[in-house]
Amino acid sequence: MSIITGDKTFFKGIEQIQFEGRESKNPLAFRWYEADRVVAGKPMKDWLRFACAYWHSFNGDGSDPFGGRTHFFPWDESADPLLRAKDKMDAAFEFMTKVNLPFYCFHDVDLIDHTNDVAENEKRMAFITDYAKEKQAASGIELLWGTANLFSHVRYMNGAATNPDFHVLAHGGAQVKSALDATIKLGGSNYVFWGGREGYMTLLNTDMKREQEHLAKFLHVAKDYARAQGFTGTFLIEPKPCEPTKHQYDYDAATVIGFLEHFGLQNDFKLNLEVNHATLAGHTFQHEVQVAAQAGLLGSMDANRGDYQNGWDTDQFPTNVNELAETMLILLEAGGLNKGGINFDAKIRRNSTDPADLFYAHIGGMDTFARALIVADDILQHSDYKKLRQERYASYDSGAGADFEAGKLDLVALRDYAAANGEPKMTSGQQELYENIINQYI
Amino acid sequence: MSIITGDKTFFKGIEQIQFEGRESKNPLAFRWYEADRVVAGKPMKDWLRFACAYWHSFNGDGSDPFGGRTHFFPWDESADPLLRAKDKMDAAFEFMTKVNLPFYCFHDVDLIDHTNDVAENEKRMAFITDYAKEKQAASGIELLWGTANLFSHVRYMNGAATNPDFHVLAHGGAQVKSALDATIKLGGSNYVFWGGREGYMTLLNTDMKREQEHLAKFLHVAKDYARAQGFTGTFLIEPKPCEPTKHQYDYDAATVIGFLEHFGLQNDFKLNLEVNHATLAGHTFQHEVQVAAQAGLLGSMDANRGDYQNGWDTDQFPTNVNELAETMLILLEAGGLNKGGINFDAKIRRNSTDPADLFYAHIGGMDTFARALIVADDILQHSDYKKLRQERYASYDSGAGADFEAGKLDLVALRDYAAANGEPKMTSGQQELYENIINQYI
Amino acid sequence: MSIITGDKTFFKGIEQIQFEGRESKNPLAFRWYEADRVVAGKPMKDWLRFACAYWHSFNGDGSDPFGGRTHFFPWDESADPLLRAKDKMDAAFEFMTKVNLPFYCFHDVDLIDHTNDVAENEKRMAFITDYAKEKQAASGIELLWGTANLFSHVRYMNGAATNPDFHVLAHGGAQVKSALDATIKLGGSNYVFWGGREGYMTLLNTDMKREQEHLAKFLHVAKDYARAQGFTGTFLIEPKPCEPTKHQYDYDAATVIGFLEHFGLQNDFKLNLEVNHATLAGHTFQHEVQVAAQAGLLGSMDANRGDYQNGWDTDQFPTNVNELAETMLILLEAGGLNKGGINFDAKIRRNSTDPADLFYAHIGGMDTFARALIVADDILQHSDYKKLRQERYASYDSGAGADFEAGKLDLVALRDYAAANGEPKMTSGQQELYENIINQYI
Amino acid sequence: MSIITGDKTFFKGIEQIQFEGRESKNPLAFRWYEADRVVAGKPMKDWLRFACAYWHSFNGDGSDPFGGRTHFFPWDESADPLLRAKDKMDAAFEFMTKVNLPFYCFHDVDLIDHTNDVAENEKRMAFITDYAKEKQAASGIELLWGTANLFSHVRYMNGAATNPDFHVLAHGGAQVKSALDATIKLGGSNYVFWGGREGYMTLLNTDMKREQEHLAKFLHVAKDYARAQGFTGTFLIEPKPCEPTKHQYDYDAATVIGFLEHFGLQNDFKLNLEVNHATLAGHTFQHEVQVAAQAGLLGSMDANRGDYQNGWDTDQFPTNVNELAETMLILLEAGGLNKGGINFDAKIRRNSTDPADLFYAHIGGMDTFARALIVADDILQHSDYKKLRQERYASYDSGAGADFEAGKLDLVALRDYAAANGEPKMTSGQQELYENIINQYI
Repeated sequence: MSIITGDKTFFKGIEQIQFEGRESKNPLAFRWYEADRVVAGKPMKDWLRFACAYWHSFNGDGSDPFGGRTHFFPWDESADPLLRAKDKMDAAFEFMTKVNLPFYCFHDVDLIDHTNDVAENEKRMAFITDYAKEKQAASGIELLWGTANLFSHVRYMNGAATNPDFHVLAHGGAQVKSALDATIKLGGSNYVFWGGREGYMTLLNTDMKREQEHLAKFLHVAKDYARAQGFTGTFLIEPKPCEPTKHQYDYDAATVIGFLEHFGLQNDFKLNLEVNHATLAGHTFQHEVQVAAQAGLLGSMDANRGDYQNGWDTDQFPTNVNELAETMLILLEAGGLNKGGINFDAKIRRNSTDPADLFYAHIGGMDTFARALIVADDILQHSDYKKLRQERYASYDSGAGADFEAGKLDLVALRDYAAANGEPKMTSGQQELYENIINQYI
Repeated sequence: MSIITGDKTFFKGIEQIQFEGRESKNPLAFRWYEADRVVAGKPMKDWLRFACAYWHSFNGDGSDPFGGRTHFFPWDESADPLLRAKDKMDAAFEFMTKVNLPFYCFHDVDLIDHTNDVAENEKRMAFITDYAKEKQAASGIELLWGTANLFSHVRYMNGAATNPDFHVLAHGGAQVKSALDATIKLGGSNYVFWGGREGYMTLLNTDMKREQEHLAKFLHVAKDYARAQGFTGTFLIEPKPCEPTKHQYDYDAATVIGFLEHFGLQNDFKLNLEVNHATLAGHTFQHEVQVAAQAGLLGSMDANRGDYQNGWDTDQFPTNVNELAETMLILLEAGGLNKGGINFDAKIRRNSTDPADLFYAHIGGMDTFARALIVADDILQHSDYKKLRQERYASYDSGAGADFEAGKLDLVALRDYAAANGEPKMTSGQQELYENIINQYI
Repeated sequence: MSIITGDKTFFKGIEQIQFEGRESKNPLAFRWYEADRVVAGKPMKDWLRFACAYWHSFNGDGSDPFGGRTHFFPWDESADPLLRAKDKMDAAFEFMTKVNLPFYCFHDVDLIDHTNDVAENEKRMAFITDYAKEKQAASGIELLWGTANLFSHVRYMNGAATNPDFHVLAHGGAQVKSALDATIKLGGSNYVFWGGREGYMTLLNTDMKREQEHLAKFLHVAKDYARAQGFTGTFLIEPKPCEPTKHQYDYDAATVIGFLEHFGLQNDFKLNLEVNHATLAGHTFQHEVQVAAQAGLLGSMDANRGDYQNGWDTDQFPTNVNELAETMLILLEAGGLNKGGINFDAKIRRNSTDPADLFYAHIGGMDTFARALIVADDILQHSDYKKLRQERYASYDSGAGADFEAGKLDLVALRDYAAANGEPKMTSGQQELYENIINQYI
Repeated sequence: MSIITGDKTFFKGIEQIQFEGRESKNPLAFRWYEADRVVAGKPMKDWLRFACAYWHSFNGDGSDPFGGRTHFFPWDESADPLLRAKDKMDAAFEFMTKVNLPFYCFHDVDLIDHTNDVAENEKRMAFITDYAKEKQAASGIELLWGTANLFSHVRYMNGAATNPDFHVLAHGGAQVKSALDATIKLGGSNYVFWGGREGYMTLLNTDMKREQEHLAKFLHVAKDYARAQGFTGTFLIEPKPCEPTKHQYDYDAATVIGFLEHFGLQNDFKLNLEVNHATLAGHTFQHEVQVAAQAGLLGSMDANRGDYQNGWDTDQFPTNVNELAETMLILLEAGGLNKGGINFDAKIRRNSTDPADLFYAHIGGMDTFARALIVADDILQHSDYKKLRQERYASYDSGAGADFEAGKLDLVALRDYAAANGEPKMTSGQQELYENIINQYI
């Protein structure tokens, strides 16, 4: 790749990141991540389609509920919204090129400021996506997915597709149409729905059944439109349990899968799973990935981490090799993400205010994922891990167990088998051995 | 009812509890609960079909992970397992009669000690259910539901229907067959499955997809057997997220509903929801009840409460009128539990060692539920609560909103509606007003 | 009180709230709260010195991490910061008068916008406190406490008194000096420190010992200044475990008390306890109040509630009579808050956007506290609660137990007592009976 | 060491574990742990004084609140309690020798079954400690600490030193005296207090102040006795927040330190910190270690891990290198544990029923700690970590900052410094860079 900096350079003094190997002590060089290294039959870069999240890296201002902005960006200084949007896009493509990120993701309002005028917003989106198309072509960077932000604007305070006021739902529709058009125009592989306000603040004022039916209908309408426009990518739902609402309808993977199947959406929609959302829902990330994978609905990932000592969405960059290695085991066994990818839905900390911090953060995140993938691949290729697990279920591979799986045994037959064969022998689950195997390959 | 005490009296000095009204200061008298008071068209006792949980009240010995037995029962002293089972049943019916509990629930192993011999267990169950039938007839107390305990025995340490060893699954089948026979014989209204070990301790050694398919098949087989024996009651699944396993497959209401629908079980199975299980899963109890009710799968309730400052299943008796009033609102609007009931799956504390403590606990629990029901009924009858909530959704009752619900609007139509009608007006969710209404009726 | 509305009236259509009794169905009238009712020897209003939190009610704009402003105030429209501050103060005193709140609390930056110029800020504070003095005199409303906001400004992103940069600490000192001057001028009963950024984001970059020593020195310096200016009120520390930092140094009551005693601050400082902060730290509010009370350091309260299903500071208005009744028991037994009060550090929900919502919220909160106080008083006066608890400890009131308390028994004497007296009898803790007593008086 | 197997061999087929290096694929050989490798000036074995927890490994039977025993030990078969105790001790020393554990820890009741007779218990303890002394001499294994179990027996259900009944407290004294005698006899380096029932089940029935004063007096009496017997080791308090009681008095490190200082115990008592207890209290383990270290009260460690998705004490074996490396950084900077050690207060899972599982578990735990220590040492020796952190605080090393630390600046001086020097420059906290440094050395 060549560096695409547009008219202005925003990250001065930082050259394109080079792979210098694990032994490097330069924190601005990759120590580990080798994009072309072959893992399980294909280059790592095809397993780990890393994407930059436009919103955290180029719009996130460091504010939190207890304090204002701390991140002041040079690309945010122009008074003209169109020029400001172009500057931001220059910065984004400069950053992605320098840090070797092959994909990006956006909400409509990340790309360019929106107004309260539907037609004006469509014009602005047309303008900035023209420019994005050029930047993509020049840099080779692709769009992993687009989405519409239906949660920040005041009109969505009671929900978007689940708003008690149809008028608000219609505005959500207008934004989704525009964001779908942009995604299709830019060749996006996927389109995401994250229902930031689709849920309730209190059950007391809520007709949950009616709201969920509205949501299902809204998704159908959006899908039908996109398919009619020729979109062949995947629609993704991103589960999250409880923030910003008290309860979000897309609580976790199992809830979303049940919803998709109930409303006949499972052939077009898959899941975009986020680490921090999994843990807020009381699950490990591995669990959520497994649930989606076994339903054939594993679409894409939002890479980050939460803080186990608090209960909100800290969206920190991933650093834990142990945990991600277990996730990569599932990913490898499931055959990967196909057209999905690994989007760094992560933000540098409020007090990380140096331009270099954005680089450290993404480098650390990519390193961690790459190491985890290599560890998982080693485990699958060189250890007894897979064999140990398969052998646990051997009793179902033949004989009465196989008959049971084939539906040939009724309850009386089970009872008779138990009576005839006495007490089963005790079989250790060997959890500590499995855990040692993971650590042995780190 | 007359008091049925069998050969022995175990709760000496405590007579049958009388209704003495709210002003009573006798802690062994009802202050509030009026079984025959009419609420929403039927007596409270028909809304609140209270049941006694055999296991907590007559088997629970007060031990916890850090200490041994503290509850020593006079009905537990005989060396003969059959006599011991009869003594226990005498105590149970004496207690239920004295405290006015019209229903009870049991696991197979609660009623009588089990051995490792399938045929011997069946004989024991036949013996004790003969006796139970007599006690039911004499007292008028009915069986709300029966179940099989597939989690305490060492053989289930890796699961029952989800055990990697088919031999163990078969034993689970033998127990379920026997417990179904007992439930049918005793005229039970429901049969419950609680998958105490159906889940995983570590995902590393687990083939989750295969295990869940085994579980589904097991449920089908059990249902087919019971239906063939003429059982017309409801099968119930009891969700719980994480104890005793690291992750239980029946995580919460939404997960179980998705599972039932996916495997074609939704016409025979409903949900048995427990307060403490709801909160462990990150939900309010109200939420879980609403999820089940709107799916038409609200079956029964396990009444208790957890401790918001820790993360395990404390199974304390319910005391919070505020929270239960919100649940009773949903229950009343859903039309009640039909053949389900409200089972006190709650245990007196480890250090509550007086015989009277069991009475205090159940009286407090029944009072709390009854007060909550009356509060909810008052709110629905006398306040603006229902009207306020319905009016929030008025925009879908006619015009474009109704068209959307009817499937007549596509995404372009939504966009055009938004563009034509400008920014929606802001509408308060009025959460604090709704909350004040609840408190106003307490 | 007369209504003090300044030049402008901001809450049109809402007259001064009247006590209409519990039977009233007018949600804008008190149903329960009777300020002059005598409880435990003094009027309720002297037990419950309710205060309005300036920041939530008059500055809070409804934004959250996922969306912008939803609360738009008529008092926030003037372009001139001084006039805007006066308008806001008019609104505040109009509101407090109409809703019968006898006290208020502020941060420096709540009263009037601050700049980066120390001297200019001091001038602005002088201006607005002149006006506040007039408003207080005209309305009879008093200042419960003042404080300085050392957490919102970008300069405090790494801490204020614990900032690694002394230059930032000095700015904290400048703000505290100005806020102390304002508090003294307005006759405030207390001065509060809430260390919003006093903690760490990551332990990796933190010298915790040095930071805590800086904090202690800073508190000494502030106290010495205020005492020299004649301030005779109480200094208060407000514990909170984890937001906005990853870990706050003033974690909970026990931590703060240990800190105060270690650094010799316990004679001037007490605790300002908040419900939601207690639960975030893993405690009940009752527990925190008891810890402070038994150390003689119970200063004041921040009244609100959290959401038990999530892990951040929702600051909702209090509604739970059960929980607050247990707190009021401790408060009554501790003799009350003296010069402290009950500050509604609570905010209406993001989507509560009607002017009346602010009234509903405060009315509900005051009602709940008043009911809880009356319940607690009834329990102490009319039930066995206190006697039951005292009798549990009777063995220490005389004999060997009293000798032990008096320091007359060594370990050998304890051993010999045990050996001589055999196994103790079992004594029930009777938790369910105590819980029933609470509910009996609600 | 030679293998000390007593009369019987319990772990047949497992020879003494050998160091085979990281490349070894034999799960019963060390891959990493090199006891004699020098780290920061002394052998690893002197930093990591690993101990075996008698209770988990030789008494723990696999039962949990939902099911009975799953671990059946050959050393538990004799009907004679004395012989059974000797068999268990043979097994323990065989295991410790084979797995190279240089220390062990016990509760009195772990070593030998206790009765309700004080004198008989003392005789039993004398008998088994005679045998332990022989085993220690023969094997070279030492006692890290002893303790008395004051939580499992029914008599302690309402507390031991905090029991409302003095008679129970006296029995606690008898046990502590006997356990102190045993610890002194066996040359234990420390004596531990873990207050399993020292707390409350409900605050409603509790006089917390009186209970805590009893606890303090009890600790004084125990300390005075032991010192009089010549014990020169350290007394340790082990904090834990909430299990088995609803609230434990020794909640966390800060709470215990405050308690020790308040009651004048800080010169004899230090802290024994446990990973899982830290996380249950809402802290990282690193945090707790730092709190104790900076107070000069870091005594010893209980090594294990919890489950971040649930809320009870799972006591799993440690596996996370990332987290322990951060702890080891603090340990190295604090100069180590001195006479403390690292006790595996961890249990194999309920379904880990093979004899080898106990070996896998301890090997994995020791490996993880050793790797973490080496990582931390590398970071301190080879990276900028320490320098980066020190430079953050440079402003306090000279000039006005140093004057502030020296107590030379009052509040007015701080204000004047701020006014004179304008707005501070923004300094990044660089959290992501610090995190990358940790991962770079793993």
